Amino acid sequence: MVVRVAVAGASGYAGGELLRLLLGHPEVEIGALTGHSNAGQKLGVLQPHLLPLADLVLEPTTAEVLAGHDVVFLALPHGQSAAVAQQLGDDVLVIDMGADFRLQNAADWDRFYGSEHAGTWPYGLPELPGARAALEGAKRIAVPGCYPTAVSLALFPAYTAGLAEPEAVITAATGTSGAGKALKPHLLGSEVMGSMSPYGVGGVHRHTPEMVQNLSAAAGEPVGVSFTPTLAPMSRGILATCSAKARPGTTAADVRAAYEKAFADEPFVHLLPEGQWPATASVYGSNAVQIQVAYDESANRIIAISAIDNLTKGTAGGAVQSMNIALGLPEDTGLSMIGVAP
Amino acid sequence: MVVRVAVAGASGYAGGELLRLLLGHPEVEIGALTGHSNAGQKLGVLQPHLLPLADLVLEPTTAEVLAGHDVVFLALPHGQSAAVAQQLGDDVLVIDMGADFRLQNAADWDRFYGSEHAGTWPYGLPELPGARAALEGAKRIAVPGCYPTAVSLALFPAYTAGLAEPEAVITAATGTSGAGKALKPHLLGSEVMGSMSPYGVGGVHRHTPEMVQNLSAAAGEPVGVSFTPTLAPMSRGILATCSAKARPGTTAADVRAAYEKAFADEPFVHLLPEGQWPATASVYGSNAVQIQVAYDESANRIIAISAIDNLTKGTAGGAVQSMNIALGLPEDTGLSMIGVAP
Amino acid sequence: MVVRVAVAGASGYAGGELLRLLLGHPEVEIGALTGHSNAGQKLGVLQPHLLPLADLVLEPTTAEVLAGHDVVFLALPHGQSAAVAQQLGDDVLVIDMGADFRLQNAADWDRFYGSEHAGTWPYGLPELPGARAALEGAKRIAVPGCYPTAVSLALFPAYTAGLAEPEAVITAATGTSGAGKALKPHLLGSEVMGSMSPYGVGGVHRHTPEMVQNLSAAAGEPVGVSFTPTLAPMSRGILATCSAKARPGTTAADVRAAYEKAFADEPFVHLLPEGQWPATASVYGSNAVQIQVAYDESANRIIAISAIDNLTKGTAGGAVQSMNIALGLPEDTGLSMIGVAP
Amino acid sequence: MVVRVAVAGASGYAGGELLRLLLGHPEVEIGALTGHSNAGQKLGVLQPHLLPLADLVLEPTTAEVLAGHDVVFLALPHGQSAAVAQQLGDDVLVIDMGADFRLQNAADWDRFYGSEHAGTWPYGLPELPGARAALEGAKRIAVPGCYPTAVSLALFPAYTAGLAEPEAVITAATGTSGAGKALKPHLLGSEVMGSMSPYGVGGVHRHTPEMVQNLSAAAGEPVGVSFTPTLAPMSRGILATCSAKARPGTTAADVRAAYEKAFADEPFVHLLPEGQWPATASVYGSNAVQIQVAYDESANRIIAISAIDNLTKGTAGGAVQSMNIALGLPEDTGLSMIGVAP
Repeated sequence: MVVRVAVAGASGYAGGELLRLLLGHPEVEIGALTGHSNAGQKLGVLQPHLLPLADLVLEPTTAEVLAGHDVVFLALPHGQSAAVAQQLGDDVLVIDMGADFRLQNAADWDRFYGSEHAGTWPYGLPELPGARAALEGAKRIAVPGCYPTAVSLALFPAYTAGLAEPEAVITAATGTSGAGKALKPHLLGSEVMGSMSPYGVGGVHRHTPEMVQNLSAAAGEPVGVSFTPTLAPMSRGILATCSAKARPGTTAADVRAAYEKAFADEPFVHLLPEGQWPATASVYGSNAVQIQVAYDESANRIIAISAIDNLTKGTAGGAVQSMNIALGLPEDTGLSMIGVAP
Repeated sequence: MVVRVAVAGASGYAGGELLRLLLGHPEVEIGALTGHSNAGQKLGVLQPHLLPLADLVLEPTTAEVLAGHDVVFLALPHGQSAAVAQQLGDDVLVIDMGADFRLQNAADWDRFYGSEHAGTWPYGLPELPGARAALEGAKRIAVPGCYPTAVSLALFPAYTAGLAEPEAVITAATGTSGAGKALKPHLLGSEVMGSMSPYGVGGVHRHTPEMVQNLSAAAGEPVGVSFTPTLAPMSRGILATCSAKARPGTTAADVRAAYEKAFADEPFVHLLPEGQWPATASVYGSNAVQIQVAYDESANRIIAISAIDNLTKGTAGGAVQSMNIALGLPEDTGLSMIGVAP
Repeated sequence: MVVRVAVAGASGYAGGELLRLLLGHPEVEIGALTGHSNAGQKLGVLQPHLLPLADLVLEPTTAEVLAGHDVVFLALPHGQSAAVAQQLGDDVLVIDMGADFRLQNAADWDRFYGSEHAGTWPYGLPELPGARAALEGAKRIAVPGCYPTAVSLALFPAYTAGLAEPEAVITAATGTSGAGKALKPHLLGSEVMGSMSPYGVGGVHRHTPEMVQNLSAAAGEPVGVSFTPTLAPMSRGILATCSAKARPGTTAADVRAAYEKAFADEPFVHLLPEGQWPATASVYGSNAVQIQVAYDESANRIIAISAIDNLTKGTAGGAVQSMNIALGLPEDTGLSMIGVAP
Repeated sequence: MVVRVAVAGASGYAGGELLRLLLGHPEVEIGALTGHSNAGQKLGVLQPHLLPLADLVLEPTTAEVLAGHDVVFLALPHGQSAAVAQQLGDDVLVIDMGADFRLQNAADWDRFYGSEHAGTWPYGLPELPGARAALEGAKRIAVPGCYPTAVSLALFPAYTAGLAEPEAVITAATGTSGAGKALKPHLLGSEVMGSMSPYGVGGVHRHTPEMVQNLSAAAGEPVGVSFTPTLAPMSRGILATCSAKARPGTTAADVRAAYEKAFADEPFVHLLPEGQWPATASVYGSNAVQIQVAYDESANRIIAISAIDNLTKGTAGGAVQSMNIALGLPEDTGLSMIGVAP
């Protein structure tokens, strides 16, 4: 099979990571690459690590440029994907790496994004219950947010097994690439090196309703989420520390069994042996997820911690994984579960 | 006043930070410095940033060496302070930077440290209600742990004001100096740079009972603590993200008022203007504490976040602050509230 | 003495570091602080580590605002200092932290900056031969560049002693704060963490003629400089690796003797014991300079390496040191020689 | 083809990187993995990023364990490889990632290592003139040192083209993984983060004679090397800044032409477009080499700068590349030229 792929938004971090993976994907042929303010520039300047593409020139993001490909990935600012997708045919697989089509609830969209809801597409987190079926043969896919990927995978087994109360408390640390290439003072190297800081505290981060959606679906009842993201002095990685009160009668063995069952057949999720905890370095550049869970008897809480690479499993790797499923390819084609460490 | 000071354990990070502060303390004269395996070595090799002390030679940690000083700081592995303190006279101010005398409950000590409880000394966190009175004129002081310092300051106002339910959920990120100079593989630069990882998950970290003790005292009832520490890729700093469910009827204004009242007269604690959040870089090398608090209405939780330098306010700076109080000196003598940033 | 000080350009890294030092200077009273695009903003947002100044509001950079102070520091983009200085009286001490008045040779200025040469002021690197005399009582001072500070101190003793051939090869690594707060993609945390990269290679860096000027003065003949700066994944610090061929007959003992003599009475320059090498962490936040020198017999080269904090000794600390000399204060007033490490 | 491979020294950084690459090599089957003090431990604990090998147990490093493989990689402390290699048959391809067989001159070995010289094997830097021929069909290969890889590739074209004087001055910055997993205080995260420091200054670093050997071979005359290595706050990467005086009559165009010719057909060496400079982040985790060269007319020096990943091209990737050549496989099998960035 030769899958011809276009990437809209190839100059950013998500686009760059996607191209890194597509270059190693045996069934993919890279076609048009587009940018906005960077159109006309060589990729070698914008993404100097992608040596084989150094001489490619970014084109403008238009339907004409993106037409004629089997798959089009959209790595655009939120609110822009719907218009582009409409102009591409229904037979083209469109994979949106932005937020536009993740939420099912239009009111949530309105509250967190303040614009009209574009719709809901099949959700590209294959490890969630029932998710794979919706992705097989799909022509439209919404790639999850990086935080919701890490958090949903860490907590859904506790909810599907009915072990956790429906109030989750989550603190996550992200590498700076999660904030993209935006030129903002607080993202300067001088500011982030040697510093940890929170942002979007108090229920206002836009990934919150997506977590609520995923965990509520797993629990079969509304799950409240208290989510605090923090910026860590590293380029890549998310470490999500997630906890919820245990339902009465829950034992440590119940918790372990639920997680072992949930991930037994998952190619990318690695439930660590008891006593070993995740580290973001271990999944650097890979599509792997490391998870560990514990039951704190004193506090009566289930504590699940996951580590992902925000750009790989959290964005571009998750997108490729979903593409593989949609196209009927082996799910791990072109994806690695081996981190680049140390 | 000339205060003659000895430091037992001068080769480690806590000892080094203490000496850095004492060198800038106008009333202090530095006397004997001791080490264990490093006795006989020059400080210039062990602590190359302390230029004025470069030619001092570490002596062995014995009562003879430590005798004859007004103040003796102990930066020793836990379990060793009691024997040393006993040999020093009752008129010497002994300040223990280790864990031995922090806990009031012998059963807690036994459970978390597995040895005999040495006792309880006045607790060196002056900002806690009633703490200063116990420190004035004291001859024995237990310096708090770095995490309990960050966490107790972030949460006690919510408890003293009766706004929070007695179950706290805490995730904290620490710089690697919090783990000391121990030669362990996971503390190598190659391992920690670019990586976040948790440790001591599930209620087993030794600082947990100390947080329970402080928050329970503030609340006037037992407070449960779920504490997850994480190791961040930075040398210094603790960012503590602390939350608890709000008691019925609590408003955002109540929360703000409680925190403003708690810290109105504190020289080192800076409650940030609304909308601005702490960053560990802002308190780097200083005795300052940055705190911000929010009320998340959706999740009905109070979220308080603090940033400290684990070596300064979290260890050596807190020790000097308590020494100043004990000796009747102005509390901020020799201490800075200005961070070294960026 | 009460010295009233104004700072033009208080929102950048150099201005922030200067304020950090001035806050600890016992003879200084901080007056007007000005900014350009940030005028009207509170310093607490722009420099959150300067807690005591959090509520100060930046004023626009005008002669009116800066008038009425004993000392005015200019931390402005190059080319702007002359106009401001002209409007301040001759009795005001004006200290320019930019490049405008460092070079003696107008042709050099034109070649590297492409504008008209503003003039030459007394050069604020007191450790250079004869420099202190020019600074005593001065009313205009040009603060050296950060790289020329590190490089000139590392190499001048070899030239004043006549031990080195007049061709120096220099590679220096700087922390990102040396590039200021400019919003450029290559300065984003995601780009700099985990990466080393050179820039300004091949004799084009603007600090090159300043090094040539200083080393030629020391040698008494023109010294050629090959200078390669590199950007390192750290916020602060310069490590300068400097070498030159040894003149015939030079011995290791000659080299050591020349350096010991040059720095014997310098309060801030610490020639390390033989075998110990500088580290930027050891001078973090301090005005200290660590230097070590070796003679490589195989290659017949003298290798001198210095470590400074680019913001302190390399900019703001050097400025305060020169101010102290100009005002007749003890040279180390308000300055520390103790690094904040680890 | 199925190539059965054993790795002696699988618990260190070089061994781990080798396994990461071998897991992605389509012709390789991983056989015995051995360790020294770690024998008996699971790889999942020692190398948590190598998920597919998590349950493998390290065996002791003995000839019996290593026997029966087509290829044996040795990642052992220097001085230990000869004894192991002797016990393996002549038909086994033995690839030594240590220093033992790199040097041709026994006196150099004795001077820098102080033990008996084990011999000289074909040198695994295929890009050097004539190197590939010696590797084809070889049964013994010495993998170059990481620094000599970066430096030799950066400078040999200037010497083969006769453009440079035979005295090279080199400063290189390395990530901490270059120092291995040894538990030494100066390698602790607290020490290296935020710090640059030199080591092995003055011609004493053991990689110096290897650089001399390579550059002298390229020049056809003895080349002197002044080499200063520095430790940078990053896990991976080497940035080598190399320069030499230009021979009379050399022009910038000559230099550019020599480098374009030298690397025109090299799959892994990427001579950057003029004006763009290497960054170690761009080659992170890849076998690529980024090189740029300039002629500084003022200083009359050729300045060549290279960036590699010290663990990949600098060690394990170079080893796999040489294995591919020796076995007659396409040279880039299992190797990537795409960096993991940002």
